Amino acid sequence: MNLARSFTALNKLLNFVKITRTCVAQSHSQPALTAETYNVKRGNYSTTNASDLDTFRDIVGGNNVVTEASELQGNNVDWIKTVRGQSTVLLKPKTTAEVSKILKHCNERKLAVCPQGGNTGLVGGSVPVFDEVILSTQRMNEVISVDPFSGVTVCQAGCILEKANQDLLEHDLIVPLDLGAKGSCHLGGNISTNAGGLRLLRYGSLRGSVLGVEAVLADGTVLDCLSTLRKDNTGYDIKQLMIGSEGTLGFVTAVSILCPQKPKSVNVVFLGVDRFEDLLLLLRKARQDLGEILSAVEFVDSDCIGLVGKHLKLVNPIGDYDFYMLIETSGSNSQHDEEKLSSFVEDIITSQLAKDGTIATDFNKMQSIWKLRESVAEALTHDGYTFKYDVSLPAHVMYDMVHDTRKHLKGLYNSVVGYGHLGDGNLHLNVTCPEYNKTIASAIEPFVYEWTAKHNGSISAEHGLGFKKRNYIQYTKSKESINLMMKIKEMFDPNMILNPYKTLPDKL
Amino acid sequence: MNLARSFTALNKLLNFVKITRTCVAQSHSQPALTAETYNVKRGNYSTTNASDLDTFRDIVGGNNVVTEASELQGNNVDWIKTVRGQSTVLLKPKTTAEVSKILKHCNERKLAVCPQGGNTGLVGGSVPVFDEVILSTQRMNEVISVDPFSGVTVCQAGCILEKANQDLLEHDLIVPLDLGAKGSCHLGGNISTNAGGLRLLRYGSLRGSVLGVEAVLADGTVLDCLSTLRKDNTGYDIKQLMIGSEGTLGFVTAVSILCPQKPKSVNVVFLGVDRFEDLLLLLRKARQDLGEILSAVEFVDSDCIGLVGKHLKLVNPIGDYDFYMLIETSGSNSQHDEEKLSSFVEDIITSQLAKDGTIATDFNKMQSIWKLRESVAEALTHDGYTFKYDVSLPAHVMYDMVHDTRKHLKGLYNSVVGYGHLGDGNLHLNVTCPEYNKTIASAIEPFVYEWTAKHNGSISAEHGLGFKKRNYIQYTKSKESINLMMKIKEMFDPNMILNPYKTLPDKL
Repeated sequence: MNLARSFTALNKLLNFVKITRTCVAQSHSQPALTAETYNVKRGNYSTTNASDLDTFRDIVGGNNVVTEASELQGNNVDWIKTVRGQSTVLLKPKTTAEVSKILKHCNERKLAVCPQGGNTGLVGGSVPVFDEVILSTQRMNEVISVDPFSGVTVCQAGCILEKANQDLLEHDLIVPLDLGAKGSCHLGGNISTNAGGLRLLRYGSLRGSVLGVEAVLADGTVLDCLSTLRKDNTGYDIKQLMIGSEGTLGFVTAVSILCPQKPKSVNVVFLGVDRFEDLLLLLRKARQDLGEILSAVEFVDSDCIGLVGKHLKLVNPIGDYDFYMLIETSGSNSQHDEEKLSSFVEDIITSQLAKDGTIATDFNKMQSIWKLRESVAEALTHDGYTFKYDVSLPAHVMYDMVHDTRKHLKGLYNSVVGYGHLGDGNLHLNVTCPEYNKTIASAIEPFVYEWTAKHNGSISAEHGLGFKKRNYIQYTKSKESINLMMKIKEMFDPNMILNPYKTLPDKL
Repeated sequence: MNLARSFTALNKLLNFVKITRTCVAQSHSQPALTAETYNVKRGNYSTTNASDLDTFRDIVGGNNVVTEASELQGNNVDWIKTVRGQSTVLLKPKTTAEVSKILKHCNERKLAVCPQGGNTGLVGGSVPVFDEVILSTQRMNEVISVDPFSGVTVCQAGCILEKANQDLLEHDLIVPLDLGAKGSCHLGGNISTNAGGLRLLRYGSLRGSVLGVEAVLADGTVLDCLSTLRKDNTGYDIKQLMIGSEGTLGFVTAVSILCPQKPKSVNVVFLGVDRFEDLLLLLRKARQDLGEILSAVEFVDSDCIGLVGKHLKLVNPIGDYDFYMLIETSGSNSQHDEEKLSSFVEDIITSQLAKDGTIATDFNKMQSIWKLRESVAEALTHDGYTFKYDVSLPAHVMYDMVHDTRKHLKGLYNSVVGYGHLGDGNLHLNVTCPEYNKTIASAIEPFVYEWTAKHNGSISAEHGLGFKKRNYIQYTKSKESINLMMKIKEMFDPNMILNPYKTLPDKL
């Protein structure tokens, strides 16, 4: 890399650490909130009794029916400890047939069910609110087939994203999805929440790369849409309703994904930038110059870098700037990729669009730079109770939201930070404060939702609505859309047993 | 191109012609078939009367209510002249509000409606079967907005694909969709049929690149899902139900599409190959060596090349082989792209995977090569009545279907040809015969559908089900899926006025 000399030679300072995030709960002392705090009333469901437990044991075996409160603790709380449920039973089926029998029984008995994958969601969608039966995919972790020729991979829903990706590397393939929670999250959960993440810029959304879904409906019907074909135009694409419906329309049991070739060459650049407007100019230039090899464009603000330094001791390899940009390229020819990147970097340093930066071409250095970006969520959990917002906005107003939130909250916080997927127009706005209290909660909400709606954004770019955001849906979706959602829910799940209190608003 | 010398130097023979297909009807003398031939009974709908016409004139103005039989002729027949309807009225609204008023009236009056875009569909989905009111998008042709920064483009549904693409070129963008009918087809029709086409390999399906849809439901409700955001996870993705439902759930009035950067460099290679197995090896090698710049991998068999030569006088620039492969690359750096392509071509010529070939790097030569591939559909219309099949299959069995169909039909045909989107596993199987007759029809169907189902394929990869294929849906879709489709249709359109006799089977 002839351009390496233009950069501060601080690569040696980078920590060479594995960047997988396993579920790390918020480390401050704040207890997770219950349904009472959120003012939610239990639906008119039955309560699990001894006879139900016998039925469940008959279906999945005694070892896979967990009723011990201590063992259920982790399954009752989300990983950022913002919602706590009170479920008394966790079921661990191994097969689709078992899931079908369980749901048939629950539907007949009107027992509410909370589907759960890796429980890494950020909107309280994967934990029970009251005493819902927790139905987990953790034992449904078989890779069913990999076609190295086409890249089509079929897996059970409980496969862990990172593990699936590692398995695919043997076939020179990768999963077209990558996110901070990859070490814990399940593919079924990724599909149910339409996870976005770090590779969306390059490989597009799951709506394009998921070829098939098998799901069990509320009444136990197995819906086999597990196509392995790249194209199929025979009628309505029902599987799209399963993607992103957070388990409210069906329990995803298996998925078929089109997996791209593993890139032969990956490079990462980390840049220091003075102004948000310059980030946008850099994004445009990266699109023009790096074109088809551009695989991620992320940003963090200076406060984020401060927090990962303070709480996780991660070292920023360049100087202090207001913004930092991470650009990743992935391609099939390392010489070509490095030439494109060198020319790009030369231009942006010469024109002073970026003030400083470092290029990483070896695996460990790339991992270290990625860790700076991927650890922001974890660092925030050490900074206090975190209010998390995940919005889509037109790029030019994206960071104004952070400024305006700081102004609006007049010091009622520890930190207000902005970071996220710049290339996708996706901002993660996070507010930390010493502890949860209603004053600050009502100062933040609906302020951030109103701000988003005013700028034609989405109040949830990739995290979903889950439990915590469902009643704000009208800030993004029209009344007609919400009305259709309600009707679809009623059609798929007339007893409303699947993941109640999630996704759909309490009322229109 | 240092490799050009490895190729037969016949580029000069190529015709430099513009390859847009406008609607060319089948040129043999076969009349299009009516509902009677297909054994379909008219539904219990009202018939348009003078008062309805007055209402329509009030909504769209007298000039935009067409009732003259001669003027309606083209709108009553599909472009390959296989289905003829008997509509007596065509409406040409300009705005979404007009569409809303029209549908509200039709719903109240129980008048059946046939939505129509460019009428380039191949399964009889865009023409009336009986006397449905034809509701055309032809005057809804405004480009609403183009954001050169993000690439997000919002258009009315009646914009013609090729025109929209030309307009976008000014902003260095392209529509992520390209198909033979681009000179006539409308974007709304593309979305309603989930069109696939030639760029799918590179840019993915419309399910990923369509960000928003505005549609009018059967009762006149305007459903505004016209998001311009790359990410939005706020509830069920209702617009996905509009994509590919062939106008049976709603009338698409506007679309929002994520348009990629115009490539700076495009190259095309045309190869002669002896065996289908070698095509597959070439495909794999192209994926590995050309990686991110690979933008199309198409094939035609020798009979196709014979037909475009015989009927359209197009000249094959290389020698005679059993198969021909067209590989296109698109990238951001012409030197890099040409280096990748040269190295690829050197390898495949040395290893004799391809026996001969020609590289085109200038626009006219590329157009000429593309014309050989894109003109196959037109050449077939000159060869006799055409039975058209568009199937997805696992790549290794794809061409066996052509062999088996020839054997099965024992000479009852003019031609049986195979061509299509090799990179997507999408075969176009076409059978021509002197004229339509029931003997040959029943020899072909359900044979081809059974063959497809036996090999886990889809009976419609990209053309849809429309009028002609809806009753074969069970060869690809499960009973549970079809059942859900029926319920969704009933929910969206209880009076079943939208595009009746299309997509959904007559019975389960």
